[in-house]
Amino acid sequence: MRAAVLARQGEMTLETLPLPTLDPDQVLVQVAAVGVCGSDVHYYDHGRIGPYVVDHPLVLGHELSGRIVAVGSSVDPERVGRRVAVEPQRPCRKCPQCRAGRYNLCPDIEFYATPPVDGAFAEYVAIQDDFAFDIPDTLSDEAAALIEPLSVGLWACERAGIRPGSRVLIAGAGPIGVITAQAARAFGAAEVYITDVAEDRLAFALGHGATHALNAMTESAEGLDVDAFIDASGAAPAVRAGIRAVAPAGKVILVGLGADDVELPVSFIQNREIWLSGVFRYTNTWPLAIQLLADGKVDLDVLVTGRFALAQAEEALKAGKQPGQLKAVVYPGR
Amino acid sequence: MRAAVLARQGEMTLETLPLPTLDPDQVLVQVAAVGVCGSDVHYYDHGRIGPYVVDHPLVLGHELSGRIVAVGSSVDPERVGRRVAVEPQRPCRKCPQCRAGRYNLCPDIEFYATPPVDGAFAEYVAIQDDFAFDIPDTLSDEAAALIEPLSVGLWACERAGIRPGSRVLIAGAGPIGVITAQAARAFGAAEVYITDVAEDRLAFALGHGATHALNAMTESAEGLDVDAFIDASGAAPAVRAGIRAVAPAGKVILVGLGADDVELPVSFIQNREIWLSGVFRYTNTWPLAIQLLADGKVDLDVLVTGRFALAQAEEALKAGKQPGQLKAVVYPGR
Amino acid sequence: MRAAVLARQGEMTLETLPLPTLDPDQVLVQVAAVGVCGSDVHYYDHGRIGPYVVDHPLVLGHELSGRIVAVGSSVDPERVGRRVAVEPQRPCRKCPQCRAGRYNLCPDIEFYATPPVDGAFAEYVAIQDDFAFDIPDTLSDEAAALIEPLSVGLWACERAGIRPGSRVLIAGAGPIGVITAQAARAFGAAEVYITDVAEDRLAFALGHGATHALNAMTESAEGLDVDAFIDASGAAPAVRAGIRAVAPAGKVILVGLGADDVELPVSFIQNREIWLSGVFRYTNTWPLAIQLLADGKVDLDVLVTGRFALAQAEEALKAGKQPGQLKAVVYPGR
Amino acid sequence: MRAAVLARQGEMTLETLPLPTLDPDQVLVQVAAVGVCGSDVHYYDHGRIGPYVVDHPLVLGHELSGRIVAVGSSVDPERVGRRVAVEPQRPCRKCPQCRAGRYNLCPDIEFYATPPVDGAFAEYVAIQDDFAFDIPDTLSDEAAALIEPLSVGLWACERAGIRPGSRVLIAGAGPIGVITAQAARAFGAAEVYITDVAEDRLAFALGHGATHALNAMTESAEGLDVDAFIDASGAAPAVRAGIRAVAPAGKVILVGLGADDVELPVSFIQNREIWLSGVFRYTNTWPLAIQLLADGKVDLDVLVTGRFALAQAEEALKAGKQPGQLKAVVYPGR
Repeated sequence: MRAAVLARQGEMTLETLPLPTLDPDQVLVQVAAVGVCGSDVHYYDHGRIGPYVVDHPLVLGHELSGRIVAVGSSVDPERVGRRVAVEPQRPCRKCPQCRAGRYNLCPDIEFYATPPVDGAFAEYVAIQDDFAFDIPDTLSDEAAALIEPLSVGLWACERAGIRPGSRVLIAGAGPIGVITAQAARAFGAAEVYITDVAEDRLAFALGHGATHALNAMTESAEGLDVDAFIDASGAAPAVRAGIRAVAPAGKVILVGLGADDVELPVSFIQNREIWLSGVFRYTNTWPLAIQLLADGKVDLDVLVTGRFALAQAEEALKAGKQPGQLKAVVYPGR
Repeated sequence: MRAAVLARQGEMTLETLPLPTLDPDQVLVQVAAVGVCGSDVHYYDHGRIGPYVVDHPLVLGHELSGRIVAVGSSVDPERVGRRVAVEPQRPCRKCPQCRAGRYNLCPDIEFYATPPVDGAFAEYVAIQDDFAFDIPDTLSDEAAALIEPLSVGLWACERAGIRPGSRVLIAGAGPIGVITAQAARAFGAAEVYITDVAEDRLAFALGHGATHALNAMTESAEGLDVDAFIDASGAAPAVRAGIRAVAPAGKVILVGLGADDVELPVSFIQNREIWLSGVFRYTNTWPLAIQLLADGKVDLDVLVTGRFALAQAEEALKAGKQPGQLKAVVYPGR
Repeated sequence: MRAAVLARQGEMTLETLPLPTLDPDQVLVQVAAVGVCGSDVHYYDHGRIGPYVVDHPLVLGHELSGRIVAVGSSVDPERVGRRVAVEPQRPCRKCPQCRAGRYNLCPDIEFYATPPVDGAFAEYVAIQDDFAFDIPDTLSDEAAALIEPLSVGLWACERAGIRPGSRVLIAGAGPIGVITAQAARAFGAAEVYITDVAEDRLAFALGHGATHALNAMTESAEGLDVDAFIDASGAAPAVRAGIRAVAPAGKVILVGLGADDVELPVSFIQNREIWLSGVFRYTNTWPLAIQLLADGKVDLDVLVTGRFALAQAEEALKAGKQPGQLKAVVYPGR
Repeated sequence: MRAAVLARQGEMTLETLPLPTLDPDQVLVQVAAVGVCGSDVHYYDHGRIGPYVVDHPLVLGHELSGRIVAVGSSVDPERVGRRVAVEPQRPCRKCPQCRAGRYNLCPDIEFYATPPVDGAFAEYVAIQDDFAFDIPDTLSDEAAALIEPLSVGLWACERAGIRPGSRVLIAGAGPIGVITAQAARAFGAAEVYITDVAEDRLAFALGHGATHALNAMTESAEGLDVDAFIDASGAAPAVRAGIRAVAPAGKVILVGLGADDVELPVSFIQNREIWLSGVFRYTNTWPLAIQLLADGKVDLDVLVTGRFALAQAEEALKAGKQPGQLKAVVYPGR
């Protein structure tokens, strides 16, 4: 099969790889669409993310949809032909974290496009049967692929305790920020403030989830006293400003990846008994995401601003740096 | 009545003040014993704690027990004569935080010995009826007074989710650290690691709650992967080291007061989905504290290393700085 | 002032009563609209509800809105003139339940129109300042009054753990059933099944919150495996059938009042580890209710099928028994 | 290997069966000790439990400890030789319940000694690697086997929300009642009331977990207002009386198996917003159980009142009906 491979930092090549072999509990998915994530771009630009180093050629891509074309020995053959959205991780299912339902924290988890595990910039991928979720015909390939970043937003809202009537602040109006704003609305948030420094991103966010937009260069969120602050910027000043906008007993969820160590307003957190945490991927979000998409409560198609063939994968990785671009999608079958 | 007053930074005087007047829902308590807290010492040494400035003479002391000698117009007169432990705060009972049961986060709360509210280094204090808790005869005046710091430890354990079998790390083997270790054991913790730089404190903690002691100068907690880390040191390096010892999905509760802003290992918190928060005093802890003391599950008397008359309040404030001293108690009636 | 009084079982009289006196923390509300609740009708029909016996003349009515016309000594005089929705209960604020935020379970709570406490079929009522909630001009008097039954529905959804994507079954398509269906949708429920034996009620419910309707005479909910079942019928067969439609780890909330003792499928509850509880009024629901109404996420005006002057209170109490009638409203000022 | 087989209702035979075959993730355990459970006795007496019918010969027994003597192809061979306590169930690990950490509610779960799955009255059994827990040398074979019923008690306490200071009522002073009393104490319960009709059982319970004993024939629990009631009797009158002893916002957990349908005091449950549920086996309890045993916080050896060889299995099944007998243990290797 054909695959777009990150040979090394800054160098993509189109290669022919063997088809993935299937374990008994896996299915083979013909990939329809793959979203380009910031982490893909980061591997391309820097050759590593923290401790994960690209020291062997790596297939990028972990936001994907497709169709099942073969099944492992213990999987119901009826599944062949189904359109699916793929949850791109593989927990051990046996450790205490897995057994407690927190499989995203499994120490032995494998994740697409994280060295040494290949991803989905390829014609075919293998995934466990129960991590390939049937989707209705009304969902586009792109929307089904973008369930992956939607899952990040849903998981952030879940952990942030968003509920009917919540007032939420989100920092960063990129793809994750906008998706999280939509997710927050789906969780019932009454007010969703979003901050960024780019006016065009703020304008877009306002029409797609956010109820209020603040330009971080000129407007302060301090005093908003929101129930929850979700950072989707990874920028330390935004994180600090966001925390200071949280009401007593409120929550802070850090989604954006920034520096390993950040100075935080600890006495503010203590005095208000604010809970702060982050998200590490997600657990059990696909069924809800599919439901929300089917009900029209979130709209992911609107995020797609660039479409690319597999041979254009490198171009797709660079697309996000253009002004006005939100999300690039690669179609391995085209 | 007589009271020991902080006239200004570094200057204590013994004065005669009018008896407190009682609101209809209050009782008058003849103070038996008052523990000296680090915050009392801080006001004495620095004349302020953060935004709270001693710009008028202030009666210090907020850890107290005593006996009810008079009641307000709406209080059952039967309570006169009762020995009580006092929860030294007064929430508004009407704001959203109070109505939700989080009265410690009431924006209008009044707290003993926090400007401009006087404290308990005095012969008498007024407190709302339901914040004066009957104690059994088996409890000493000192133990009943020290329910206040015990409440801090219990509230920290509550928020840290300590439960049977938990493995807990506590930084700082001062009074709060040792009390929190005892509280953690009462919550069922199987292992309680405590860190400090003073060997005598560690040795004392080992006999009184902690199951393991680590000298922070020579031993690292990294890799312990505890379920919860509670900081009772306020020292930034201890906070950072403690966080790095927490297992995925674990909790961090910051009790110690240190710098307003502290650099924290944010990516570590994100990758492990650790929850971090602080404590701001406590809610509804006195009944449990009294039960634990009555059942012998915690021992507070052992912490008392200095006893002082009201006229010796200044000496009491300085006592904690002596080696081997843990907790000074003032007896306003002596 | 004029008031419609239940003199005894089955006998309403219009009387002149003294104006309520205000405690320092109370406001005087000129009543604009009062909804008729099933409990009002039950007192009229039977002279009692369980242990609460009408042995003295009683003013009925506890679903109300109005305007503040006077304030007690400790209330901000700025509130005079405000349109408000009234939460018709008065907890003690001091018992363990109140202090824990569960003030609806306060053993000393007073509730409008529950002997011996008078209700709102009157020109004026007194209520504590923080139980009279400002409403926006866009809310009708009727909608503001019906926040009380909406609160029952919200509290049921809260306790039932309704969240985005939930599948919910509601038994009984009367006012509480329909309101709860709307509340469930506001909490994000993806599917809301409602059962009744009256086709007209089912048809109305379908257009106003429910996504599926089942006629209990001919259709079974068994096998639905919903996340939550909320009973708004009080009918034992409906309760049993509803429980059997709940998935493992699901929740059952009994809102409808029926027999004191009911035979339940206990081994089914055990084998599925279903949680079952009821609601007793509500806590802290008015702010959310006002938000949902202001955002158009629930519609209460559509429920009003009869409008009555104070002198017609008896007629209003009888109105609900007519076919096609859902909710009667009394206007004490007309 | 030898095994004691329930050929049909009321008829046990000693047979030679083939050794269990191992799946890749399983280990072979040489059984050291097996506790006799009420469900084993019920199968022997009645040939069925609810829908589970013994229509083929069945090996009984599901409370067991032993030693690993062989491992499947994907299991660390280092485990051979380890003494283990066995969690006798096998969830699918893939369904929504399993993925959410509630694997006891897996619809496809297999459980020892539940038709058609054989149990542990045999020389050897197969179990998944991660369901065989290493035990310290200080634990006896009997105590390790009885971790299974202890798990029921721990899971009941977990679901009942027992915490430091809780006041708990338990109905039924048989093995599960006594074990649950010990578990409640380990969870910090301050008061544990136990009810039964047999004075000898009450006396034993008082010395082994319970703090108060009530003879249900002569003493009522009404008015106790406990935080939690756990039924270990399965008797409808005890369930009803227990519920009526629960405080507002308290919890009821039904462990005992009785009639499928039971009349419950529903309006009492509603008015107090009591949560009622049951337990269906347990999840993730072995590590805590082993910790509690190692720390001496529970004592299971004291429950053993009869010891039998495999050939005496039928005698062991009948032993519990003798006065003064609590728990029979079978030793397949003797």
